[in-house]
Amino acid sequence: MAGAPQRPGEFELIARYFAPIAGAGGLGLRDDAGLLRPARGFELVVTTDALVAGVHFLPDDPPASIARKALAVNLSDLAAKGASPLGFVLSLVLPKGWTEAWLAGFAQGLGEIAAESACPLVGGDTVSTPGPLTLSITAFGSVPAGRMVLRSGAKPGDLVLVSGTIGDGALGLKVHAPGKPDWVAGLSEADRAHLADRYLHPRPRLALAAALQAHASAAMDVSDGLVGDLAKLVAASGIGAEIDLDTVPLSAAARAAIMADPALTELAWTGGDDYEILCTASEREFPAMAAAAEAAGLGLACIGRVTSELGVVRFLERGRARSFAQGSFAHF
Amino acid sequence: MAGAPQRPGEFELIARYFAPIAGAGGLGLRDDAGLLRPARGFELVVTTDALVAGVHFLPDDPPASIARKALAVNLSDLAAKGASPLGFVLSLVLPKGWTEAWLAGFAQGLGEIAAESACPLVGGDTVSTPGPLTLSITAFGSVPAGRMVLRSGAKPGDLVLVSGTIGDGALGLKVHAPGKPDWVAGLSEADRAHLADRYLHPRPRLALAAALQAHASAAMDVSDGLVGDLAKLVAASGIGAEIDLDTVPLSAAARAAIMADPALTELAWTGGDDYEILCTASEREFPAMAAAAEAAGLGLACIGRVTSELGVVRFLERGRARSFAQGSFAHF
Repeated sequence: MAGAPQRPGEFELIARYFAPIAGAGGLGLRDDAGLLRPARGFELVVTTDALVAGVHFLPDDPPASIARKALAVNLSDLAAKGASPLGFVLSLVLPKGWTEAWLAGFAQGLGEIAAESACPLVGGDTVSTPGPLTLSITAFGSVPAGRMVLRSGAKPGDLVLVSGTIGDGALGLKVHAPGKPDWVAGLSEADRAHLADRYLHPRPRLALAAALQAHASAAMDVSDGLVGDLAKLVAASGIGAEIDLDTVPLSAAARAAIMADPALTELAWTGGDDYEILCTASEREFPAMAAAAEAAGLGLACIGRVTSELGVVRFLERGRARSFAQGSFAHF
Repeated sequence: MAGAPQRPGEFELIARYFAPIAGAGGLGLRDDAGLLRPARGFELVVTTDALVAGVHFLPDDPPASIARKALAVNLSDLAAKGASPLGFVLSLVLPKGWTEAWLAGFAQGLGEIAAESACPLVGGDTVSTPGPLTLSITAFGSVPAGRMVLRSGAKPGDLVLVSGTIGDGALGLKVHAPGKPDWVAGLSEADRAHLADRYLHPRPRLALAAALQAHASAAMDVSDGLVGDLAKLVAASGIGAEIDLDTVPLSAAARAAIMADPALTELAWTGGDDYEILCTASEREFPAMAAAAEAAGLGLACIGRVTSELGVVRFLERGRARSFAQGSFAHF
């Protein structure tokens, strides 16, 4: 094509940028398909997430950050299910006008998080689109047979637990995206950086996977907002919950934002992009679960208790009932 | 949104249209992740393909046909690797303005091919895009440990074999798409229908999977054109090949098109969208491989022989050397 930038073809591109992410054990992306070899007695947990530029990330975000996020949101699901990463496949749908520099940055970020999480690239497909950059990653993890942690195992009387801090991702998007609300200017530089980083670079809580497998009665990751994801967990488990919102863990940066605009609690609790673990555990199992979180350098807050009121989640804030207009981020 | 059509939300949509495709054995799409349980002694073959409206299919193609094709191209890869389908995950990236009628048709086509091929839906993600409809499917198959059929096993002296007929898909696109070339009008109604159907509804050759596992030295599916895919197979195997183009199997409809315009052989042999099996087998294994194909109601033509000339494919047509300008469909 006259005038088009000189760019490598699909096979050169795979060899140069993606084969290094494939690790040493597999087929090195040199076949039509990849191979996964779960150990004897183990099952495979499979999760898939699609991300679209302008919907799930900003088109101008650093390519390494986009790559990290695309794999991290899948690893977050594996962690919540108690699984250890085994590998992933990538569908990379490239818009017109992609550059090799962009792709090099993308592959670098992807390679870093793949190496950190021992999750090699086992296959993929690269195609072009007249639309925006679109990524779909399917990730695989292994769990001992019968030990995947489900959404559906919570029992009345169990404690409701959440890792890390809630709200940073949704607040971080406001800090990061154009058209910033007034409260952003009132935050310190460090608080702004913290929130934006939490939005751009979710940390999958893989360090909690083994403890969840051993001690949790139910778990999921918080991706669509604490309030909405909690509704899914109680529906799947056929239970209810009472949540004390004053105990939901907030970062210092999120506290500063909420000090500036108290209405931001709504965004923090419903906004999504947290990628923390929401789980339930019996009182007996709680100390072991908390100890595992501490050993992993993570907070694990008890925010409420499971009830037998099917599908009903009661929220208390400073002792008074609170309800939410919008349960969680809706894709449509 | 005022004025927007009344449409089901993501969870209703999953329950109504996709849960029925999940089969009875799994988690019914009610958790964050799916579960695969390969039998003891089996490994998992993983393949992924992305399809974009306007690139891999026409936006106005029947939604059931789009769904069928999206899964079929993945099943074709599993078949070529000798694997039995275990399940698949779907990333469905919906453009603005999708309708429930479109989605119902899509789910119906997807459910039919999933049932026919015993390949249940084990998970997925549904998101929206300002761009064109985009689908990414990752499919899983099982093979006895160590028995995945690779691209890289062809040996000098092996026969080069191809299933079914070649060229129908690429010719079918010309018949099906707007702006039809002159030769299309000269074809019979039945020939036009045959070619368009071959483009719209690829048939994954799963019936050959067991025989490939038992008898083939190397295999891949023909998706990017016979000439280009053959180049990949010889490169992966570190061999060469001599191909007698007069023996490449053509359908009656493709023959009629080539009669009308002899230059169409180029398109037939390089155009892609065949989803037939290209494989190699020793002379000793060939009769068993051919018998298996016959039992499956499929042709299996011997089109040439593997040589030791690394990476060199020599094509003969009516006894004379022929070369191809464009090896295969290039995505960039």
